[in-house]
Amino acid sequence: MALAHVGEQLHVDLVGQHAVVERELDTLLHGEYADVAPVRARVHVVDAPDVIEMTDRPTVALRAKVKSSMVTGIRRVADGVSHAFVSAGNTGAQMAASLMHLKLHEGLTRPAIGTIFPTSRQPVLVLDSGANVDCSPEELVQFAQIGAVYAECLLGRTLPAIGLLSIGEEAEKGNVAVKEAHQRLRASGVNFVGNVEGRDIPQGAIDSGPIDVVVCDGFTGNVLLKFYERLAPMVIGLVARSEGLDAHAVAARLRELDADEYGGAPLLGVRGVSVISHGKSSPKALMNAIRVAARAVETGMSDAIGVQLQRAAAAHTTSVGGLS
Amino acid sequence: MALAHVGEQLHVDLVGQHAVVERELDTLLHGEYADVAPVRARVHVVDAPDVIEMTDRPTVALRAKVKSSMVTGIRRVADGVSHAFVSAGNTGAQMAASLMHLKLHEGLTRPAIGTIFPTSRQPVLVLDSGANVDCSPEELVQFAQIGAVYAECLLGRTLPAIGLLSIGEEAEKGNVAVKEAHQRLRASGVNFVGNVEGRDIPQGAIDSGPIDVVVCDGFTGNVLLKFYERLAPMVIGLVARSEGLDAHAVAARLRELDADEYGGAPLLGVRGVSVISHGKSSPKALMNAIRVAARAVETGMSDAIGVQLQRAAAAHTTSVGGLS
Repeated sequence: MALAHVGEQLHVDLVGQHAVVERELDTLLHGEYADVAPVRARVHVVDAPDVIEMTDRPTVALRAKVKSSMVTGIRRVADGVSHAFVSAGNTGAQMAASLMHLKLHEGLTRPAIGTIFPTSRQPVLVLDSGANVDCSPEELVQFAQIGAVYAECLLGRTLPAIGLLSIGEEAEKGNVAVKEAHQRLRASGVNFVGNVEGRDIPQGAIDSGPIDVVVCDGFTGNVLLKFYERLAPMVIGLVARSEGLDAHAVAARLRELDADEYGGAPLLGVRGVSVISHGKSSPKALMNAIRVAARAVETGMSDAIGVQLQRAAAAHTTSVGGLS
Repeated sequence: MALAHVGEQLHVDLVGQHAVVERELDTLLHGEYADVAPVRARVHVVDAPDVIEMTDRPTVALRAKVKSSMVTGIRRVADGVSHAFVSAGNTGAQMAASLMHLKLHEGLTRPAIGTIFPTSRQPVLVLDSGANVDCSPEELVQFAQIGAVYAECLLGRTLPAIGLLSIGEEAEKGNVAVKEAHQRLRASGVNFVGNVEGRDIPQGAIDSGPIDVVVCDGFTGNVLLKFYERLAPMVIGLVARSEGLDAHAVAARLRELDADEYGGAPLLGVRGVSVISHGKSSPKALMNAIRVAARAVETGMSDAIGVQLQRAAAAHTTSVGGLS
């Protein structure tokens, strides 16, 4: 019952099969969550009889299941009925429905997904973490623009420090796309602090100072994210065994590494707020996903991304014009 | 004094500035390592007056400093005077000198570097971990061929299981190069077990069973390797703080995660054994690098790589011929 924790102004539409949702809600509010039963007044059940399965192909599902919670919920945002949409359903379908109904900000070709990586200092946003596999230098620069706004709005960072993931700190290190992106980022208007290596992420910093955002293609970002998700428990397990501790208890005490603390990932670049939560989201993760959505709405993150992209495009046109 | 631990047959040439090496050796064998002084009979000092600095540009250094330990040592392998070369010096210079003097096996365009990743099961070889940044599908397949031989010779694995690093288990997941490599790997003759995700590496396994080798481009591999090197200590640090333990003591007890245990990385694909050790190698890391070199020589790894590549090329020609 995230509502009891997130804020008094928040109203939630639960979009799904009406009877099923009502029954679940009743059970919870008369059982486990009886103490927060008054929140029921702020919950509105919206009927969506179609069900998109996790295994459905996104584009097929969207056409065949227009009365799904995914399509219904996102259209309510597009129509201005809701402020934000949160789902722990089929990610591909959520991306496709968000693109179709919310549409992208001008100048973008693809949306991005940013993920929070806990570090030994402040958490760092890594994007893209899986929406875009093969990325052009232009797209990497767009991630920097988008990530800067995310870090300001959702992480509260002032003039966020943007790093570019590479395999050395020198500008000439990296693959073809990264090397060109490095040059473009220098003139992009964001606070570009240079290349970041794999080793810099767990420290949340490079030599010159802390980093807020790490830009990379969605292939590398996705590999890193999934590697992190299992490596941390593996190391905890090894330490626990070596020290004679209970690994589960140790992990439970380590809030810093609990992905649920960071809630969901807003689909970045669409006009509106659509937050993706893990398919296996715990109640805490969902609550935090709703928090992320609420904060994105309050700070006007989506509009700010649009403005940032327009400003960058204008600056680019000016500088190109200046050259001719 | 690795010699005392590695094997009685082993003789070592110490290549470097004669007076400096002799003096160091004397100090050690009359001091800290007095108990293993008899190994002196198996140590031969080879003079190499030039010094390649860590900051020297590899190609420039090789031309200007032909009497360096790097060039001298590698030429001794090329000339059949030594069986193997181990260095903790300038990696770029070692690669360049190895390429120039040892040369690549037929069919290869670039050498690869494989790194051992400790997992919660058996250690896994990840290659390429930094020698090749932008990789073609053909190169990824070559890494699989090379990695299979490494896993047999140095890790003692029978019919090693080769995985391809991607962002989903399905063949159609991945970037352009990875998707094509997936198809080619199926017909490559290696024991290709399919795509491996970031999360599978810390487990050392996918659903179908353990993995021995993870193939990826050198950009992704390098980012992952450096991420791992700092993430593990970061997690150990967090656990130690949370549990009131001494992080250094905990880390020291975790031999599984000690990179020094795995010694050096042989430069894979060159004709001969050239083992790269970290610039900041501890005595233990260097000893294990020498162990790796000795084992590569004993098992005939370099020749086996040549044979494997020839066999793959022949199979490819046959199957292409069969199509026409």
